[in-house]
Amino acid sequence: MTIELLENERIDDLHRKGYRIIQNSKMFCFGMDAVLLSAFAKVSTEDHVLDMGSGNGVIPLLIQGRYEPASVTGLEIQEANVHMSRRSVQLNGVDDKVRIIQGDIKEADQLLPLSSFNVITCNPPYMDTGKGLHNELSAKTIARHEVLCTLEDVIRSASKLTTVGGKFFMVHRPHRLVDIITLLRHYKMEPKRLRMVHSDLESEANMVLIESVRQGKPFLKIEKPLIIYGEPNQYTDEVARLYYD
Amino acid sequence: MTIELLENERIDDLHRKGYRIIQNSKMFCFGMDAVLLSAFAKVSTEDHVLDMGSGNGVIPLLIQGRYEPASVTGLEIQEANVHMSRRSVQLNGVDDKVRIIQGDIKEADQLLPLSSFNVITCNPPYMDTGKGLHNELSAKTIARHEVLCTLEDVIRSASKLTTVGGKFFMVHRPHRLVDIITLLRHYKMEPKRLRMVHSDLESEANMVLIESVRQGKPFLKIEKPLIIYGEPNQYTDEVARLYYD
Repeated sequence: MTIELLENERIDDLHRKGYRIIQNSKMFCFGMDAVLLSAFAKVSTEDHVLDMGSGNGVIPLLIQGRYEPASVTGLEIQEANVHMSRRSVQLNGVDDKVRIIQGDIKEADQLLPLSSFNVITCNPPYMDTGKGLHNELSAKTIARHEVLCTLEDVIRSASKLTTVGGKFFMVHRPHRLVDIITLLRHYKMEPKRLRMVHSDLESEANMVLIESVRQGKPFLKIEKPLIIYGEPNQYTDEVARLYYD
Repeated sequence: MTIELLENERIDDLHRKGYRIIQNSKMFCFGMDAVLLSAFAKVSTEDHVLDMGSGNGVIPLLIQGRYEPASVTGLEIQEANVHMSRRSVQLNGVDDKVRIIQGDIKEADQLLPLSSFNVITCNPPYMDTGKGLHNELSAKTIARHEVLCTLEDVIRSASKLTTVGGKFFMVHRPHRLVDIITLLRHYKMEPKRLRMVHSDLESEANMVLIESVRQGKPFLKIEKPLIIYGEPNQYTDEVARLYYD
Protein backbone atom coordinates (compact mmCIF):
# COMPACT_ATOMS: atom_id res chain seq x y z
CA MET A 1 0.00 0.00 0.00
CA THR A 2 1.26 3.48 -0.82
CA ILE A 3 0.65 6.11 1.81
CA GLU A 4 1.08 9.74 0.89
CA LEU A 5 3.62 11.70 2.94
CA LEU A 6 3.37 15.48 3.07
CA GLU A 7 6.10 18.06 3.66
CA ASN A 8 7.89 17.65 7.03
CA GLU A 9 6.29 14.26 7.62
CA ARG A 10 8.20 11.14 8.58
CA ILE A 11 7.32 7.59 9.59
CA ASP A 12 8.32 6.46 13.12
CA ASP A 13 8.30 3.01 14.67
CA LEU A 14 5.87 2.46 17.58
CA HIS A 15 7.72 -0.66 18.84
CA ARG A 16 4.43 -2.48 19.16
CA LYS A 17 3.34 -5.19 16.70
CA GLY A 18 5.41 -3.50 14.03
CA TYR A 19 3.04 -0.52 14.05
CA ARG A 20 4.30 2.73 12.62
CA ILE A 21 3.07 6.30 12.81
CA ILE A 22 3.27 9.33 10.57
CA GLN A 23 4.49 12.41 12.41
CA ASN A 24 5.07 15.96 11.28
CA SER A 25 8.16 17.54 12.75
CA LYS A 26 6.49 20.98 12.66
CA MET A 27 3.54 19.74 14.71
CA PHE A 28 3.19 18.04 18.08
CA CYS A 29 5.05 14.72 18.11
CA PHE A 30 4.20 12.05 20.64
CA GLY A 31 6.20 11.79 23.84
CA MET A 32 6.61 9.53 26.78
CA ASP A 33 3.25 10.62 28.25
CA ALA A 34 1.39 8.84 25.44
CA VAL A 35 3.39 5.65 26.00
CA LEU A 36 2.86 5.75 29.77
CA LEU A 37 -0.86 6.50 29.45
CA SER A 38 -1.51 3.63 27.06
CA ALA A 39 0.33 1.25 29.40
CA PHE A 40 -1.44 2.61 32.52
CA ALA A 41 -4.87 2.11 30.92
CA LYS A 42 -6.54 -1.23 31.56
CA VAL A 43 -8.37 -2.37 28.46
CA SER A 44 -10.00 -5.70 27.62
CA THR A 45 -10.77 -7.18 24.22
CA GLU A 46 -14.49 -6.42 24.76
CA ASP A 47 -14.00 -2.71 25.42
CA HIS A 48 -15.02 0.17 23.23
CA VAL A 49 -12.36 2.81 23.66
CA LEU A 50 -12.40 6.54 22.96
CA ASP A 51 -9.30 8.73 22.93
CA MET A 52 -10.24 12.39 23.26
CA GLY A 53 -7.90 14.82 21.51
CA SER A 54 -6.10 12.05 19.66
CA GLY A 55 -3.62 14.31 17.84
CA ASN A 56 -1.53 12.29 15.40
CA GLY A 57 -3.27 9.11 16.56
CA VAL A 58 -0.51 7.72 18.74
CA ILE A 59 -2.75 6.65 21.65
CA PRO A 60 -5.42 4.93 19.49
CA LEU A 61 -2.64 3.02 17.72
CA LEU A 62 -0.82 2.07 20.92
CA ILE A 63 -4.10 0.96 22.55
CA GLN A 64 -4.98 -1.11 19.47
CA GLY A 65 -1.49 -2.61 19.35
CA ARG A 66 -1.36 -3.40 23.05
CA TYR A 67 -4.91 -4.56 23.86
CA GLU A 68 -6.84 -5.24 20.60
CA PRO A 69 -10.15 -3.98 22.03
CA ALA A 70 -13.51 -4.26 20.24
CA SER A 71 -13.09 -0.76 18.81
CA VAL A 72 -10.96 2.34 19.16
CA THR A 73 -12.21 5.83 18.31
CA GLY A 74 -10.02 8.90 18.18
CA LEU A 75 -11.63 12.32 18.42
CA GLU A 76 -9.49 15.14 17.08
CA ILE A 77 -10.29 18.75 16.22
CA GLN A 78 -7.40 19.70 13.93
CA GLU A 79 -7.94 18.74 10.31
CA ALA A 80 -4.24 18.22 9.57
CA ASN A 81 -4.02 15.76 12.49
CA VAL A 82 -7.16 13.95 11.38
CA HIS A 83 -5.78 13.57 7.86
CA MET A 84 -2.39 12.40 9.13
CA SER A 85 -3.72 9.94 11.70
CA ARG A 86 -6.17 8.40 9.24
CA ARG A 87 -3.20 7.69 6.97
CA SER A 88 -1.35 6.08 9.92
CA VAL A 89 -4.38 3.87 10.56
CA GLN A 90 -4.29 2.79 6.91
CA LEU A 91 -0.53 2.29 7.03
CA ASN A 92 -1.00 -0.27 9.80
CA GLY A 93 -3.99 -1.93 8.15
CA VAL A 94 -6.33 -1.43 11.12
CA ASP A 95 -9.05 0.61 9.37
CA ASP A 96 -11.66 -1.91 10.55
CA LYS A 97 -10.73 -1.37 14.24
CA VAL A 98 -9.57 2.23 14.59
CA ARG A 99 -11.55 5.20 13.34
CA ILE A 100 -10.68 8.86 13.63
CA ILE A 101 -13.50 11.39 13.91
CA GLN A 102 -13.01 15.09 13.45
CA GLY A 103 -14.64 17.14 16.18
CA ASP A 104 -14.43 19.25 19.28
CA ILE A 105 -14.12 17.69 22.75
CA LYS A 106 -16.56 20.34 24.00
CA GLU A 107 -19.20 19.01 21.59
CA ALA A 108 -18.31 15.34 21.97
CA ASP A 109 -21.70 14.57 23.52
CA GLN A 110 -23.37 15.69 20.28
CA LEU A 111 -20.98 13.80 18.02
CA LEU A 112 -20.87 10.46 19.82
CA PRO A 113 -23.49 8.34 21.63
CA LEU A 114 -23.77 9.07 25.36
CA SER A 115 -22.62 6.45 27.92
CA SER A 116 -21.23 4.28 25.14
CA PHE A 117 -17.49 3.87 25.84
CA ASN A 118 -16.18 1.50 28.53
CA VAL A 119 -12.80 3.18 28.40
CA ILE A 120 -11.83 6.75 27.65
CA THR A 121 -8.28 8.02 27.48
CA CYS A 122 -7.00 11.58 27.25
CA ASN A 123 -3.64 13.30 27.12
CA PRO A 124 -5.02 16.85 27.29
CA PRO A 125 -3.27 20.20 26.96
CA TYR A 126 -1.37 20.75 30.22
CA MET A 127 -1.11 24.50 30.34
CA ASP A 128 -3.94 26.58 31.71
CA THR A 129 -2.30 29.71 30.31
CA GLY A 130 -4.09 29.50 26.98
CA LYS A 131 -6.31 32.53 27.34
CA GLY A 132 -3.75 35.06 26.20
CA LEU A 133 -2.56 33.06 23.23
CA HIS A 134 -5.39 33.35 20.70
CA ASN A 135 -3.38 35.32 18.18
CA GLU A 136 -0.81 32.61 17.51
CA LEU A 137 -2.82 29.41 17.30
CA SER A 138 -0.25 26.97 15.98
CA ALA A 139 -0.92 23.23 16.07
CA LYS A 140 1.60 22.87 18.90
CA THR A 141 -0.08 25.62 20.91
CA ILE A 142 -3.44 23.86 20.57
CA ALA A 143 -1.92 20.58 21.74
CA ARG A 144 -0.23 22.14 24.76
CA HIS A 145 -2.46 24.97 25.98
CA GLU A 146 -6.08 25.06 27.03
CA VAL A 147 -7.10 27.32 24.15
CA LEU A 148 -9.72 25.11 22.51
CA CYS A 149 -10.81 23.18 25.58
CA THR A 150 -10.26 23.39 29.31
CA LEU A 151 -9.63 20.62 31.82
CA GLU A 152 -13.27 20.97 32.83
CA ASP A 153 -14.46 20.46 29.23
CA VAL A 154 -12.40 17.26 29.02
CA ILE A 155 -13.77 15.85 32.28
CA ARG A 156 -17.36 16.87 31.56
CA SER A 157 -17.28 15.14 28.17
CA ALA A 158 -15.61 12.02 29.60
CA SER A 159 -18.35 11.83 32.20
CA LYS A 160 -21.06 12.03 29.54
CA LEU A 161 -19.56 9.51 27.13
CA THR A 162 -18.35 6.78 29.46
CA THR A 163 -20.62 3.95 30.60
CA VAL A 164 -21.62 3.74 34.26
CA GLY A 165 -18.71 1.82 35.79
CA GLY A 166 -16.57 2.71 32.78
CA LYS A 167 -13.03 3.99 33.20
CA PHE A 168 -11.36 7.25 32.28
CA PHE A 169 -7.55 7.35 32.14
CA MET A 170 -5.70 10.63 31.97
CA VAL A 171 -2.10 11.82 32.10
CA HIS A 172 -1.42 15.31 33.36
CA ARG A 173 0.96 17.50 35.33
CA PRO A 174 1.16 17.28 39.14
CA HIS A 175 0.56 20.97 39.67
CA ARG A 176 -3.02 20.54 38.36
CA LEU A 177 -3.87 17.50 40.50
CA VAL A 178 -6.10 19.44 42.88
CA ASP A 179 -8.15 20.78 39.95
CA ILE A 180 -8.25 17.32 38.38
CA ILE A 181 -9.47 15.58 41.53
CA THR A 182 -12.10 18.17 42.42
CA LEU A 183 -13.44 18.26 38.85
CA LEU A 184 -13.50 14.48 38.53
CA ARG A 185 -15.51 14.12 41.70
CA HIS A 186 -17.79 16.99 40.71
CA TYR A 187 -18.63 15.16 37.46
CA LYS A 188 -19.13 11.82 39.26
CA MET A 189 -15.90 10.32 37.93
CA GLU A 190 -14.40 8.92 41.14
CA PRO A 191 -10.59 8.80 41.20
CA LYS A 192 -9.61 5.21 41.97
CA ARG A 193 -5.94 4.82 41.03
CA LEU A 194 -3.09 7.28 40.91
CA ARG A 195 0.50 6.85 39.86
CA MET A 196 3.19 9.48 40.14
CA VAL A 197 5.94 9.62 37.52
CA HIS A 198 9.40 10.83 38.59
CA SER A 199 12.46 11.31 36.37
CA ASP A 200 14.52 9.68 39.09
CA LEU A 201 14.22 8.87 42.78
CA GLU A 202 15.49 12.28 43.85
CA SER A 203 13.09 14.34 41.73
CA GLU A 204 9.60 15.59 42.33
CA ALA A 205 6.88 14.10 40.15
CA ASN A 206 6.62 15.53 36.63
CA MET A 207 3.59 13.55 35.47
CA VAL A 208 0.57 11.96 37.11
CA LEU A 209 -1.48 9.09 35.74
CA ILE A 210 -5.01 8.89 37.05
CA GLU A 211 -7.80 6.37 36.62
CA SER A 212 -11.36 7.35 37.51
CA VAL A 213 -14.56 5.32 37.36
CA ARG A 214 -17.97 6.75 36.52
CA GLN A 215 -20.04 6.57 39.70
CA GLY A 216 -17.29 4.55 41.40
CA LYS A 217 -17.17 4.10 45.16
CA PRO A 218 -14.63 6.35 46.93
CA PHE A 219 -11.39 4.49 47.62
CA LEU A 220 -8.15 5.70 46.10
CA LYS A 221 -5.10 3.52 45.58
CA ILE A 222 -1.74 5.22 45.07
CA GLU A 223 0.54 2.85 43.20
CA LYS A 224 4.29 2.51 43.56
CA PRO A 225 6.09 5.42 41.92
CA LEU A 226 7.07 5.10 38.28
CA ILE A 227 10.73 6.02 37.98
CA ILE A 228 11.98 6.82 34.47
CA TYR A 229 15.75 6.79 34.82
CA GLY A 230 17.85 4.49 37.01
CA GLU A 231 21.26 5.55 35.78
CA PRO A 232 21.57 8.88 33.92
CA ASN A 233 20.18 8.49 30.37
CA GLN A 234 19.22 4.89 31.03
CA TYR A 235 15.61 3.82 31.44
CA THR A 236 14.67 1.68 34.41
CA ASP A 237 13.70 -1.88 33.48
CA GLU A 238 10.03 -1.07 33.93
CA VAL A 239 10.10 1.85 31.50
CA ALA A 240 12.15 -0.11 28.96
CA ARG A 241 9.48 -2.83 29.14
CA LEU A 242 6.67 -0.30 28.68
CA TYR A 243 8.28 0.86 25.47
CA TYR A 244 9.46 -2.37 23.96
CA ASP A 245 7.57 -5.34 25.46
CA MET B 1 11.82 16.56 89.29
CA THR B 2 9.58 13.63 90.14
CA ILE B 3 6.92 12.80 87.60
CA GLU B 4 4.11 10.48 88.59
CA LEU B 5 3.72 7.34 86.46
CA LEU B 6 0.36 5.56 86.43
CA GLU B 7 -0.39 1.90 85.76
CA ASN B 8 0.76 0.66 82.32
CA GLU B 9 2.76 3.82 81.72
CA ARG B 10 6.37 3.88 80.61
CA ILE B 11 8.85 6.53 79.53
CA ASP B 12 10.18 6.40 75.96
CA ASP B 13 13.01 8.29 74.32
CA LEU B 14 12.06 10.71 71.52
CA HIS B 15 15.63 10.82 70.10
CA ARG B 16 15.42 14.59 69.88
CA LYS B 17 17.25 16.89 72.31
CA GLY B 18 17.03 14.17 74.92
CA TYR B 19 13.26 14.58 75.09
CA ARG B 20 11.23 11.76 76.57
CA ILE B 21 7.56 10.93 76.49
CA ILE B 22 5.20 9.09 78.80
CA GLN B 23 3.15 6.45 77.00
CA ASN B 24 0.50 4.06 78.18
CA SER B 25 0.73 0.64 76.59
CA LYS B 26 -3.06 0.23 76.82
CA MET B 27 -3.66 3.45 74.90
CA PHE B 28 -2.57 4.75 71.51
CA CYS B 29 1.24 4.92 71.34
CA PHE B 30 2.92 7.11 68.77
CA GLY B 31 4.06 5.65 65.49
CA MET B 32 6.04 6.58 62.47
CA ASP B 33 3.28 8.86 61.19
CA ALA B 34 3.95 11.33 64.03
CA VAL B 35 7.68 11.34 63.30
CA LEU B 36 7.13 11.82 59.56
CA LEU B 37 4.55 14.57 60.07
CA SER B 38 6.75 16.58 62.43
CA ALA B 39 9.62 16.34 59.94
CA PHE B 40 7.39 17.19 56.95
CA ALA B 41 6.08 20.33 58.69
CA LYS B 42 7.98 23.54 58.05
CA VAL B 43 8.12 25.62 61.19
CA SER B 44 10.13 28.73 62.02
CA THR B 45 11.14 30.09 65.42
CA GLU B 46 8.49 32.85 65.06
CA ASP B 47 5.59 30.49 64.48
CA HIS B 48 2.71 29.78 66.79
CA VAL B 49 1.86 26.13 66.30
CA LEU B 50 -1.30 24.17 67.09
CA ASP B 51 -1.50 20.39 67.04
CA MET B 52 -5.12 19.25 66.85
CA GLY B 53 -5.87 15.93 68.54
CA SER B 54 -2.49 15.82 70.24
CA GLY B 55 -3.00 12.46 71.99
CA ASN B 56 -0.07 11.70 74.27
CA GLY B 57 1.67 14.90 73.11
CA VAL B 58 4.19 13.37 70.78
CA ILE B 59 3.76 15.90 67.96
CA PRO B 60 3.92 19.02 70.20
CA LEU B 61 7.10 17.63 71.79
CA LEU B 62 8.71 16.66 68.47
CA ILE B 63 7.84 20.08 66.99
CA GLN B 64 9.27 21.83 70.05
CA GLY B 65 12.41 19.67 69.96
CA ARG B 66 12.97 20.08 66.24
CA TYR B 67 12.05 23.73 65.58
CA GLU B 68 11.75 25.64 68.90
CA PRO B 69 8.85 27.80 67.65
CA ALA B 70 7.41 30.75 69.60
CA SER B 71 4.73 28.52 71.09
CA VAL B 72 3.21 25.09 70.72
CA THR B 73 -0.37 24.27 71.73
CA GLY B 74 -1.81 20.78 71.83
CA LEU B 75 -5.59 20.34 71.74
CA GLU B 76 -6.78 16.99 73.05
CA ILE B 77 -10.22 15.73 74.01
CA GLN B 78 -9.40 12.72 76.21
CA GLU B 79 -8.69 13.58 79.82
CA ALA B 80 -6.26 10.71 80.37
CA ASN B 81 -4.21 11.89 77.39
CA VAL B 82 -4.28 15.49 78.58
CA HIS B 83 -3.04 14.44 82.02
CA MET B 84 -0.34 12.21 80.56
CA SER B 85 0.93 14.71 78.00
CA ARG B 86 1.07 17.54 80.56
CA ARG B 87 3.35 15.34 82.65
CA SER B 88 5.54 14.70 79.58
CA VAL B 89 5.78 18.46 79.01
CA GLN B 90 6.91 18.87 82.64
CA LEU B 91 9.31 15.95 82.33
CA ASN B 92 11.11 17.77 79.52
CA GLY B 93 11.01 21.14 81.26
CA VAL B 94 9.22 22.92 78.42
CA ASP B 95 6.15 24.11 80.35
CA ASP B 96 6.84 27.69 79.22
CA LYS B 97 6.70 26.72 75.51
CA VAL B 98 4.25 23.84 75.22
CA ARG B 99 0.74 23.90 76.63
CA ILE B 100 -1.92 21.23 76.40
CA ILE B 101 -5.57 22.29 76.30
CA GLN B 102 -8.42 19.90 76.83
CA GLY B 103 -11.14 20.28 74.24
CA ASP B 104 -12.96 19.05 71.18
CA ILE B 105 -11.65 19.70 67.66
CA LYS B 106 -15.24 20.39 66.58
CA GLU B 107 -15.39 23.29 69.07
CA ALA B 108 -11.84 24.48 68.57
CA ASP B 109 -13.04 27.80 67.16
CA GLN B 110 -14.72 28.55 70.50
CA LEU B 111 -11.75 27.46 72.60
CA LEU B 112 -8.96 29.18 70.71
CA PRO B 113 -8.64 32.56 68.98
CA LEU B 114 -9.56 32.52 65.27
CA SER B 115 -6.85 33.00 62.62
CA SER B 116 -4.15 32.90 65.28
CA PHE B 117 -1.86 29.96 64.40
CA ASN B 118 0.72 30.18 61.60
CA VAL B 119 1.10 26.43 61.60
CA ILE B 120 -1.40 23.70 62.39
CA THR B 121 -0.57 20.01 62.42
CA CYS B 122 -2.90 17.04 62.69
CA ASN B 123 -2.59 13.26 62.69
CA PRO B 124 -6.33 12.56 62.69
CA PRO B 125 -8.22 9.29 63.01
CA TYR B 126 -7.82 7.49 59.70
CA MET B 127 -10.87 5.28 59.63
CA ASP B 128 -14.20 6.64 58.44
CA THR B 129 -15.92 3.56 59.84
CA GLY B 130 -16.49 5.10 63.25
CA LYS B 131 -20.25 5.40 63.06
CA GLY B 132 -21.02 1.85 64.15
CA LEU B 133 -18.54 1.78 66.99
CA HIS B 134 -20.13 3.96 69.66
CA ASN B 135 -20.63 1.11 72.10
CA GLU B 136 -16.95 0.37 72.60
CA LEU B 137 -15.35 3.77 72.84
CA SER B 138 -11.86 2.87 73.98
CA ALA B 139 -9.04 5.40 73.84
CA LYS B 140 -7.53 3.53 70.89
CA THR B 141 -10.85 3.57 69.03
CA ILE B 142 -11.12 7.33 69.47
CA ALA B 143 -7.59 7.81 68.17
CA ARG B 144 -8.14 5.63 65.11
CA HIS B 145 -11.77 6.05 64.06
CA GLU B 146 -13.83 9.09 63.19
CA VAL B 147 -16.15 8.71 66.15
CA LEU B 148 -15.59 12.04 67.87
CA CYS B 149 -14.67 14.07 64.81
CA THR B 150 -14.73 13.60 61.08
CA LEU B 151 -12.18 14.60 58.48
CA GLU B 152 -14.44 17.52 57.63
CA ASP B 153 -14.46 18.70 61.28
CA VAL B 154 -10.66 18.64 61.30
CA ILE B 155 -10.32 20.63 58.09
CA ARG B 156 -13.05 23.13 58.99
CA SER B 157 -11.39 23.88 62.32
CA ALA B 158 -7.94 24.15 60.75
CA SER B 159 -9.33 26.65 58.27
CA LYS B 160 -10.81 28.77 61.06
CA LEU B 161 -7.77 28.77 63.33
CA THR B 162 -4.94 29.25 60.88
CA THR B 163 -3.78 32.70 59.79
CA VAL B 164 -4.30 33.75 56.16
CA GLY B 165 -1.20 32.35 54.46
CA GLY B 166 -0.70 29.99 57.40
CA LYS B 167 0.07 26.32 56.84
CA PHE B 168 -1.78 23.15 57.76
CA PHE B 169 0.16 19.87 57.73
CA MET B 170 -1.63 16.55 57.89
CA VAL B 171 -0.74 12.88 57.63
CA HIS B 172 -3.40 10.46 56.43
CA ARG B 173 -4.08 7.33 54.41
CA PRO B 174 -3.97 7.38 50.61
CA HIS B 175 -7.45 5.95 50.18
CA ARG B 176 -8.92 9.19 51.63
CA LEU B 177 -6.88 11.58 49.48
CA VAL B 178 -9.82 12.50 47.24
CA ASP B 179 -11.90 13.46 50.30
CA ILE B 180 -8.95 15.33 51.77
CA ILE B 181 -8.26 17.36 48.65
CA THR B 182 -11.89 18.24 47.94
CA LEU B 183 -12.51 19.25 51.58
CA LEU B 184 -9.31 21.30 51.79
CA ARG B 185 -10.22 23.26 48.71
CA HIS B 186 -13.80 23.66 49.89
CA TYR B 187 -12.54 25.25 53.13
CA LYS B 188 -10.05 27.48 51.26
CA MET B 189 -7.03 25.51 52.42
CA GLU B 190 -5.21 25.07 49.10
CA PRO B 191 -3.09 21.90 48.86
CA LYS B 192 0.44 22.99 47.94
CA ARG B 193 2.75 20.07 48.72
CA LEU B 194 2.18 16.35 48.76
CA ARG B 195 4.48 13.49 49.64
CA MET B 196 3.67 9.83 49.31
CA VAL B 197 5.13 7.37 51.80
CA HIS B 198 5.87 3.83 50.61
CA SER B 199 7.18 0.90 52.67
CA ASP B 200 9.53 0.09 49.82
CA LEU B 201 9.89 0.87 46.14
CA GLU B 202 7.62 -1.98 45.08
CA SER B 203 4.70 -1.10 47.38
CA GLU B 204 1.77 1.19 46.98
CA ALA B 205 1.69 4.25 49.24
CA ASN B 206 0.50 3.63 52.80
CA MET B 207 0.64 7.21 54.05
CA VAL B 208 0.32 10.67 52.51
CA LEU B 209 1.73 13.88 53.89
CA ILE B 210 -0.03 17.02 52.74
CA GLU B 211 0.65 20.72 53.23
CA SER B 212 -2.10 23.24 52.54
CA VAL B 213 -2.06 27.00 52.79
CA ARG B 214 -5.02 29.11 53.81
CA GLN B 215 -6.12 31.04 50.74
CA GLY B 216 -3.03 29.84 48.86
CA LYS B 217 -2.76 30.07 45.08
CA PRO B 218 -3.41 26.77 43.26
CA PHE B 219 -0.16 25.02 42.37
CA LEU B 220 0.59 21.60 43.78
CA LYS B 221 4.07 20.16 44.09
CA ILE B 222 4.42 16.40 44.51
CA GLU B 223 7.73 15.67 46.19
CA LYS B 224 9.99 12.69 45.67
CA PRO B 225 8.56 9.56 47.28
CA LEU B 226 9.52 8.82 50.87
CA ILE B 227 10.69 5.22 51.02
CA ILE B 228 10.84 3.63 54.49
CA TYR B 229 12.85 0.46 53.96
CA GLY B 230 15.80 -0.02 51.61
CA GLU B 231 16.76 -3.51 52.69
CA PRO B 232 14.19 -5.57 54.62
CA ASN B 233 13.96 -4.30 58.23
CA GLN B 234 16.45 -1.56 57.51
CA TYR B 235 15.44 2.08 57.27
CA THR B 236 16.61 4.08 54.29
CA ASP B 237 19.16 6.77 55.15
CA GLU B 238 16.51 9.46 54.91
CA VAL B 239 14.20 7.79 57.43
CA ALA B 240 17.05 7.04 59.80
CA ARG B 241 17.94 10.75 59.67
CA LEU B 242 14.33 11.78 60.33
CA TYR B 243 14.35 9.71 63.49
CA TYR B 244 17.78 10.42 64.85
CA ASP B 245 19.21 13.62 63.35
